[in-house]
Amino acid sequence: MAQQSIDAALITCNVNLIYTYGRVVSGYLYLPLNAPAHVFIKRPNNIEGEHIHPIRKPEQLPDLLKECGLPLPTKLMLEGDELSYTEYNRLAICFPEAEVLSCGSKLIRQARSVKTLWEIETFRRSGIAHAKAYEQIPSVYRAGMTDRQLSIEIERLMRLEGCLGIFRVFGQSMEIFMGSLLAGDNAATPSPYDFALGGEGLDPSLPGGANGTLLQPGQSFMVDMGGNFYGYMGDMSRVFSIGRLPEQAYTAHQICLEIQDAVTSMAKPGTVCEDMYNTAINIVEKAGLADNFMGMGQKAKFIGHGIGLEINEAPVIAPRMKQELEPGMVFALEPKIVLPGIGPVGIENSWVVTTEGVEKLTICKEEIIEL
Amino acid sequence: MAQQSIDAALITCNVNLIYTYGRVVSGYLYLPLNAPAHVFIKRPNNIEGEHIHPIRKPEQLPDLLKECGLPLPTKLMLEGDELSYTEYNRLAICFPEAEVLSCGSKLIRQARSVKTLWEIETFRRSGIAHAKAYEQIPSVYRAGMTDRQLSIEIERLMRLEGCLGIFRVFGQSMEIFMGSLLAGDNAATPSPYDFALGGEGLDPSLPGGANGTLLQPGQSFMVDMGGNFYGYMGDMSRVFSIGRLPEQAYTAHQICLEIQDAVTSMAKPGTVCEDMYNTAINIVEKAGLADNFMGMGQKAKFIGHGIGLEINEAPVIAPRMKQELEPGMVFALEPKIVLPGIGPVGIENSWVVTTEGVEKLTICKEEIIEL
Repeated sequence: MAQQSIDAALITCNVNLIYTYGRVVSGYLYLPLNAPAHVFIKRPNNIEGEHIHPIRKPEQLPDLLKECGLPLPTKLMLEGDELSYTEYNRLAICFPEAEVLSCGSKLIRQARSVKTLWEIETFRRSGIAHAKAYEQIPSVYRAGMTDRQLSIEIERLMRLEGCLGIFRVFGQSMEIFMGSLLAGDNAATPSPYDFALGGEGLDPSLPGGANGTLLQPGQSFMVDMGGNFYGYMGDMSRVFSIGRLPEQAYTAHQICLEIQDAVTSMAKPGTVCEDMYNTAINIVEKAGLADNFMGMGQKAKFIGHGIGLEINEAPVIAPRMKQELEPGMVFALEPKIVLPGIGPVGIENSWVVTTEGVEKLTICKEEIIEL
Repeated sequence: MAQQSIDAALITCNVNLIYTYGRVVSGYLYLPLNAPAHVFIKRPNNIEGEHIHPIRKPEQLPDLLKECGLPLPTKLMLEGDELSYTEYNRLAICFPEAEVLSCGSKLIRQARSVKTLWEIETFRRSGIAHAKAYEQIPSVYRAGMTDRQLSIEIERLMRLEGCLGIFRVFGQSMEIFMGSLLAGDNAATPSPYDFALGGEGLDPSLPGGANGTLLQPGQSFMVDMGGNFYGYMGDMSRVFSIGRLPEQAYTAHQICLEIQDAVTSMAKPGTVCEDMYNTAINIVEKAGLADNFMGMGQKAKFIGHGIGLEINEAPVIAPRMKQELEPGMVFALEPKIVLPGIGPVGIENSWVVTTEGVEKLTICKEEIIEL
């Protein structure tokens, strides 16, 4: 903010309020450059404290700021990528004397990409709970289940381990329920959403994920549930099979584990994201599986992504991404291969960048698990 | 559109794409005033058909429209309440010659508020599935459960009956997982979200709904799950108790049923929403329960709301709402009372406005159900 002579930020979107204030409220956090933040709350009406004030509508903000002894901003930053056009303009017009900048989302997302020790510890706890739910998956499988039926039992396991259920994702066109279970050829079905794999979904109003496929011997399925246990979106995928799969599935799965090893061995502060991506592509090309990597027909253009309060944060591990890893960044790495007639194989874990390398947050068997 | 001389709408938000195109895509539906719509799709890449075109980025839109033989718009409508400020401006700048209006969200929401026969039939099917899930609630209750544990079992019932899980709500600060189970005094806890009742929630990152309360004899709990079975958000609440409740709970519950009867008896095309609201208030005031109606301390300022692809559509049944009911409108009516030391009572059903009155869509026992 100081670099761009911004003297205040007005924050009102839920994830940014969680980040700056620790909880969701309906209201506004006003963050001056060199003074404590003030929070103006519409709802709930039972929060009191220093620098906490009730408010009915944003038009009261200038008067309330004056009452707090704060000068009105001359250069104010709003959350331009998250606020609706209408809401943005409503807030901007409250400060007619100020220059209003839309870069709030970008700057906060940049700050959010490097996690605090508390956030990292929260991710560690999430990873443990996430793994604990996945370990119970074999116990809820019954012969004759569809992808949808098994998904429902896994959702229940996740919830029983403490998952809050809600799946937060950046971008108005991105949405998903709790995650996905992709079985057999459904893993190759392109979807509108920019996740690693697609799936047809159960209804055209939500065309992603499980589509009612019967889970069958000789086919693989991948479980990729969002691990929001304490507000932070851990990410983790594991592959299962009913009985033994054709040999090429194990070979392809091994390639993905090899990619995970190679990419996480090079990952440390200063590692460039596109180099991590290229390392993966080199391995999969040598293995002759490039056409099947990260989807078929329609491919994901990344192998990993930052995670935080939302599932898709910075950095993105993708071509042409010059961003360097920094200590405290947390990301998911998800090399995945789709084999026609068999299904998806591969791996996804969540990782935190340490001072020397990376630490795995989601520790749980990584082989294909036979049911 | 014609009334305001708008010659085209550009639609890109998921619910509006479902409404106009029947499914979610990542892309743009271009709707000229007097010509067929064209759809420009980024993802998925496997949809073909007349008036369907691939696109990589919105900046291609003007050239693609010309290729389709369509004139560029002179007055273009965008979804100002739903698009982010950044995305809105990115789209607007693609049409430098056009006057760009932000009223797209409002006009589409107005159109969406009156349902087609197909949409009403979809709501009927949703209501049946929703009721079927609720009828099984007693079978999954076990003594000693918390609100969270029982909620998880109900979520599973809903999913097994076909609920897609995802809960779509209008407004960037509104969010909830699948719905809420509010037990005992937690029903009186104010939340940041503008739902009928609040609840503390399980984590400050999602402060609404169940909070881990033990389900106890002498207390009531209310189940209010979103019924998104086919894209449309049915809404329905029922009250349960462990054993018998104090007598005042049955009295208060009866008042809510009476309100439901009175309000739905007067509801027909032409009925004014505020009159419905005032009818409810008159009954609850006469009963001496106004302080407990629609929450305590912090109260909801409505007793019902339109439902559709989102849970909060027009019309809103609230004070000063002069809007009249029209045939085809679908709304939820939810008179609810919170009793300190006992919990929530009341009722919520979904209704469609017919030519003569209203038809109930969620048919299932309405008394307090003793477990």
